[in-house]
Amino acid sequence: MPTTLPGPIDPPARLLMGPGPIGAYPSVLRAMSAPLVGQYDPFMTGAMSETQELYRAVWATGNEATVLVDGTSRAGIEAAIISLVRPGDRVLVPVFGRFGHLLAEIAERAMAEVHTIETEWGQVFPASVIEEAIVRVKPTLLALVQGDTSTTMLQPLEEIGEVCARHGVLFYSDATASLGGNAFEADAWGLDAATAGLQKCLGGPSGSAPLTLSPRAVEVVQSRKKVEAGIREPGDPSAADFVRSNYFDLGMILDYWGPRRLNHHTEATSMLYAARECARVLLLEGRDAVIERHRVAGAAMLAGVQGMGLATFGDLAHKMSNVVAVEIPGGVPGDAARQAMLEDFGIEIGTSFGPLHGRVWRIGTMGYNARKDAVLTTLVALEAVLRRFGAAVPVGGGVEAAADVFAVSSAPAGDGSEEA
Amino acid sequence: MPTTLPGPIDPPARLLMGPGPIGAYPSVLRAMSAPLVGQYDPFMTGAMSETQELYRAVWATGNEATVLVDGTSRAGIEAAIISLVRPGDRVLVPVFGRFGHLLAEIAERAMAEVHTIETEWGQVFPASVIEEAIVRVKPTLLALVQGDTSTTMLQPLEEIGEVCARHGVLFYSDATASLGGNAFEADAWGLDAATAGLQKCLGGPSGSAPLTLSPRAVEVVQSRKKVEAGIREPGDPSAADFVRSNYFDLGMILDYWGPRRLNHHTEATSMLYAARECARVLLLEGRDAVIERHRVAGAAMLAGVQGMGLATFGDLAHKMSNVVAVEIPGGVPGDAARQAMLEDFGIEIGTSFGPLHGRVWRIGTMGYNARKDAVLTTLVALEAVLRRFGAAVPVGGGVEAAADVFAVSSAPAGDGSEEA
Repeated sequence: MPTTLPGPIDPPARLLMGPGPIGAYPSVLRAMSAPLVGQYDPFMTGAMSETQELYRAVWATGNEATVLVDGTSRAGIEAAIISLVRPGDRVLVPVFGRFGHLLAEIAERAMAEVHTIETEWGQVFPASVIEEAIVRVKPTLLALVQGDTSTTMLQPLEEIGEVCARHGVLFYSDATASLGGNAFEADAWGLDAATAGLQKCLGGPSGSAPLTLSPRAVEVVQSRKKVEAGIREPGDPSAADFVRSNYFDLGMILDYWGPRRLNHHTEATSMLYAARECARVLLLEGRDAVIERHRVAGAAMLAGVQGMGLATFGDLAHKMSNVVAVEIPGGVPGDAARQAMLEDFGIEIGTSFGPLHGRVWRIGTMGYNARKDAVLTTLVALEAVLRRFGAAVPVGGGVEAAADVFAVSSAPAGDGSEEA
Repeated sequence: MPTTLPGPIDPPARLLMGPGPIGAYPSVLRAMSAPLVGQYDPFMTGAMSETQELYRAVWATGNEATVLVDGTSRAGIEAAIISLVRPGDRVLVPVFGRFGHLLAEIAERAMAEVHTIETEWGQVFPASVIEEAIVRVKPTLLALVQGDTSTTMLQPLEEIGEVCARHGVLFYSDATASLGGNAFEADAWGLDAATAGLQKCLGGPSGSAPLTLSPRAVEVVQSRKKVEAGIREPGDPSAADFVRSNYFDLGMILDYWGPRRLNHHTEATSMLYAARECARVLLLEGRDAVIERHRVAGAAMLAGVQGMGLATFGDLAHKMSNVVAVEIPGGVPGDAARQAMLEDFGIEIGTSFGPLHGRVWRIGTMGYNARKDAVLTTLVALEAVLRRFGAAVPVGGGVEAAADVFAVSSAPAGDGSEEA
């Protein structure tokens, strides 16, 4: 036994302006402290149904099969892939950053035959390149990250669904880092499966993974149905290519969320409350308004770092709204500067992975923190820290450029001049 | 988009006296609304380390490999089994209720060769029967539920570790329903792996699965290590029998919780806060005191239902402290009576599965709700409901018998007379 017990949890004040996880909306934190109810309490099953309906609006889909997977965003990815891909199936993964590698890794673990195509970090794929690879590989599934925080790039998905449909390929996208802060249209773009997490633009804690499946994807999942040992009866399906996971078998998860309410896991009640509230605050503000708020906050942060004379990484035409990669100025120790931001100002900005490690910081503007005060505060603190580490920074250049973006954006909307 | 958005979550008042999930300790709910911090914030990694140390005390183990799996209790079970069992390995599962079937099911999905032995519902296994099966099957892993809420039975584990060690078998127990309300001694009983959830005697929400692994189990897990695609380098291990899951690969999860803090999932911050607080309140009260409180509350509930003239199901000598199965009196409609308990009194009691369905209710006394007022309130409400449905119930017989148990138990402790 620990010799002295720690006290109640008492986190320090933090403004989370990294690539995620970020701070939650206050009402999401409040929702998590709501009392628990039983698994089959009418209030609980009602809250589950409400949450499904809210996420249909978030995903812009009519998919009946719109649920939460009880785990982090990675749990949603694995549930989608392992349920849709049989061992030996071919999966195509276009990789434009770290999270493409993750999709490939998860598909490999699911015993798929994985084919990847890669592009340089900081770029995305033209639809034609993806189509060429589809023709060559003839995959069962295309698995494509929408927004990869490792490079800050946003892969355009608009044309990909049509390409997949033409070639009879299932189309899955991991929208963990992008959903809620950038446009996502599950039905209009022809998605068969999409997953996310709460801890980025949705403004909640990690630990619940919204997921949606098209009717075509549901058919695949149902064809692999295996009734659980102990409640299986003679004649029940027991497909030879059953999903190699009980927890992630979307057939069983859909039966639990569906009208039959067949017992599977015990839904994580507090995370359900959080996920419900994340969607609710998003829809209360309005999906387009939230995406626009992320666009403006991202544009302001970009203008701010540029106004400080800092270079950015990657193709800005394809940057996610909610994160920017900033080159660490020569002579400034990247980790020490990040630490000063955290310790002296309580502001977290992000480090980076792989080829960008030590070369860029990643600064996010997501969910609750896609706000003017959060952006401006981060910029003035960064200016002070850079100066302390000896960088030549124009006085007020960052905060003024950012404030200009916000000033224009609060002019009557729709005049298209916000980024002028 | 939903035509009308629902309001903030606002659950009805409920006293959860079923087999779980049950109501959380108030301080656990408060902990969940604490602000979020970054994934590698020193406060976050510190809270992770504190949580590990707290759960070592809860499990009664010195195991370094004591962590949380981010998912419900079922996620912990799957992580333990899929990480310890290679495809084709033999797994022995003694089944004495529904959750034994679940362990077998999960092992089957992990492509193990699964062997089960079964006993009648309401009974447990003598160690000699398990040893005979081990000798016959020669499994790699014995997977054994400690407390199976479907039958309310508590399988004695004290002698099983020694049996497993003698035959070179890894010993895993699912303590989801029992941990915190019944004795569990991971090291003294020779466990190689054990998992649980928060939503039973630990008094938290579903969604985080405490897990502990012995050094011998860690060796197995590490021998299957496969470095994640994207950060893999030439010469890195890539075991042919890699774990068929990324999310549940305990090798990677241990690297994330360990001193290297290698990025894997993004730890579910609010669920971590909850899990930490569940362990903290348990240890603050004292592990033995909490187990004794569950023993007394369970004994009182048992005496109470017996005092009402109700029969119970199963071998009372092996009943878990925290749940009792009560035969539904002839003529009383089981579901309508449960519904009256919920609607008229806000009290949830449980239905049952399989051979017991329609035959018994399951009444729990777990975590925060292993309290005198909760037990007595449940009994007076049940008496009123039974009478309304026409059952002949001795007036006050239940509540008086239960109050007697509490009265004796609050006498000076340690006189052994509590159940007299």
